[in-house]
Amino acid sequence: MTSPLLPTADAVRAAATRLQGRVRQTPVLSSATLDAAWQSQVFFKCEQFQRMGAFKIRGALNALLQLDTAARQRGVVTYSSGNHAQGIALAARDLGVQAVIVMPSDAPETKRLATEGYGATVVQYDRCSEDRLAIAQRLQREHGYTLIPPFDHPDVIAGQGTVGLELFEEAGPLDVLLVPVGGGGLISGVALAATALCPTCAIIGVEPETGNDGQRSFRRRELVKIDTPTTIADGAQTQALGNLTLALILEHVSDMVTVSDAEIVQAMRFMAERMKLVVEPTGCLAAAAAFALRAQLKGKRVGVILSGGNVDIDHYAHLLQQCGPSRLMLTVAGPGG
Amino acid sequence: MTSPLLPTADAVRAAATRLQGRVRQTPVLSSATLDAAWQSQVFFKCEQFQRMGAFKIRGALNALLQLDTAARQRGVVTYSSGNHAQGIALAARDLGVQAVIVMPSDAPETKRLATEGYGATVVQYDRCSEDRLAIAQRLQREHGYTLIPPFDHPDVIAGQGTVGLELFEEAGPLDVLLVPVGGGGLISGVALAATALCPTCAIIGVEPETGNDGQRSFRRRELVKIDTPTTIADGAQTQALGNLTLALILEHVSDMVTVSDAEIVQAMRFMAERMKLVVEPTGCLAAAAAFALRAQLKGKRVGVILSGGNVDIDHYAHLLQQCGPSRLMLTVAGPGG
Repeated sequence: MTSPLLPTADAVRAAATRLQGRVRQTPVLSSATLDAAWQSQVFFKCEQFQRMGAFKIRGALNALLQLDTAARQRGVVTYSSGNHAQGIALAARDLGVQAVIVMPSDAPETKRLATEGYGATVVQYDRCSEDRLAIAQRLQREHGYTLIPPFDHPDVIAGQGTVGLELFEEAGPLDVLLVPVGGGGLISGVALAATALCPTCAIIGVEPETGNDGQRSFRRRELVKIDTPTTIADGAQTQALGNLTLALILEHVSDMVTVSDAEIVQAMRFMAERMKLVVEPTGCLAAAAAFALRAQLKGKRVGVILSGGNVDIDHYAHLLQQCGPSRLMLTVAGPGG
Repeated sequence: MTSPLLPTADAVRAAATRLQGRVRQTPVLSSATLDAAWQSQVFFKCEQFQRMGAFKIRGALNALLQLDTAARQRGVVTYSSGNHAQGIALAARDLGVQAVIVMPSDAPETKRLATEGYGATVVQYDRCSEDRLAIAQRLQREHGYTLIPPFDHPDVIAGQGTVGLELFEEAGPLDVLLVPVGGGGLISGVALAATALCPTCAIIGVEPETGNDGQRSFRRRELVKIDTPTTIADGAQTQALGNLTLALILEHVSDMVTVSDAEIVQAMRFMAERMKLVVEPTGCLAAAAAFALRAQLKGKRVGVILSGGNVDIDHYAHLLQQCGPSRLMLTVAGPGG
């Protein structure tokens, strides 16, 4: 298989046209209290209000819409236990395409039910003894399905980039844009959008500190693969970036930073307490980094992508109780400490 | 004191002009899953994203903006332990007006701190032995403050009505609009907005079942006062409607219904789980009624006002854990059961 060409900003614009009326233009919210405390202007792009609760429907639909009639009739396959599974399932339902999702047999039942709820067929596998990519490729061969991987695909990347287009169009020029990173599809697409609408904006990727494969790949300028990390940010438990996403990150991203699970939970609480937003742990990565970096954001126009809101509510409620009130996050320590 | 004239739809329109750029135009969100399950189109007007976390800033600002220079220099006073206190405090800070809030000494510390955080002076009183209206009136006499009551005031009502204007302008004509009711300021203003933009819309007020003073007043067509009710909906613990709000409700409202605390909590969970929205218990009154009445909403265009999101997050997390998953709320029982 030859590696497809890297997508461009034009591909992101084309995706936006293609997706019009098929995905939501999600709100951009801000907090006057936070802005005053930080002396910044912070724009939160709320993809938890996207269809199926996360940005992943954008890339999935952009990929499926470009399949020809014969490919649509054969169907699609992917491997994911998270939001990409639901994104493909919903996009396929929209277009009347059969979707098969390869999912580990120990994935939470709620995720399997949600994916099946959108009409997809779930094929389970044993995470210890079987390889999900091999299973997906076998299904591809046997049934003629088109494989739509979760992030390392030009159409998926271009679709996710429409999050960035919408944010720049609504918020105007930004100095810094913080983006959650799992496999790098979102940040790659958003960085392409920035090249068109705000080339001076520093794009910063955010990973959980245990899952810093992207940061290590960024620093070594080659793909670094790690063991599946243990983190509350389940959408960022990827072992490595992809070839396309690494190339785009190396070309367009200014830095890659990490946050701890404790910082993620504190950011989740702030989002609930002050902004009235339910955000899943992975969706809070960029917000957590904004809190950690707030002293450096003074005087700046800052974008923060909240990438999704799909979290088990009992788990969510439990996490909210794990940390103190968020008012301390509004203070910015002066030079004295 | 003579009773002021009832406000009109024109007063709501004038308030909208006056408030432009001073309050947020809050998003109207919907759920495709809910709409499909109910066979309705439901529009949730999200006032938890309003400045200070609830619609109350609208009425407060509309009242304060109409004070002359001398009155603004003397300051304002009100009595409230809830969102009206913070609304007046923030509106007063916006305009550089001194605000004094009479608040029971046993009000939660977070509410006192939030109100003081906006720069207001809190005067505490003993709920058992003192009368808050008498204290406010004494402060009014002694200092020349203008008293801005929480709901029974034409400018407050007109300001709250801008919620309805925005909703009709964004969602278009509605068949039914469900509105939380405490003292009736919000529903009175919203009903006035409906007379201008959608006179055929049925306006339905929603109270907690223990605090059904408004429903009883509506049915008897005269003010019924009850003991302070015990309910999780702390913003609807009012003992009676006001003279103005009762008159407007009798003229423009189609029905008044009640919901149980359990129904409120179940609606809160649905809002978190499916819509990614943090809504305070009082803010969920109308949503809870929509769930209860869903079989009757089939085929209809329905507005639901989520009036605020100010809730102690530890308490909120605890409540989320008190009920089961919200998927059952998507089913609509057929004639068979």
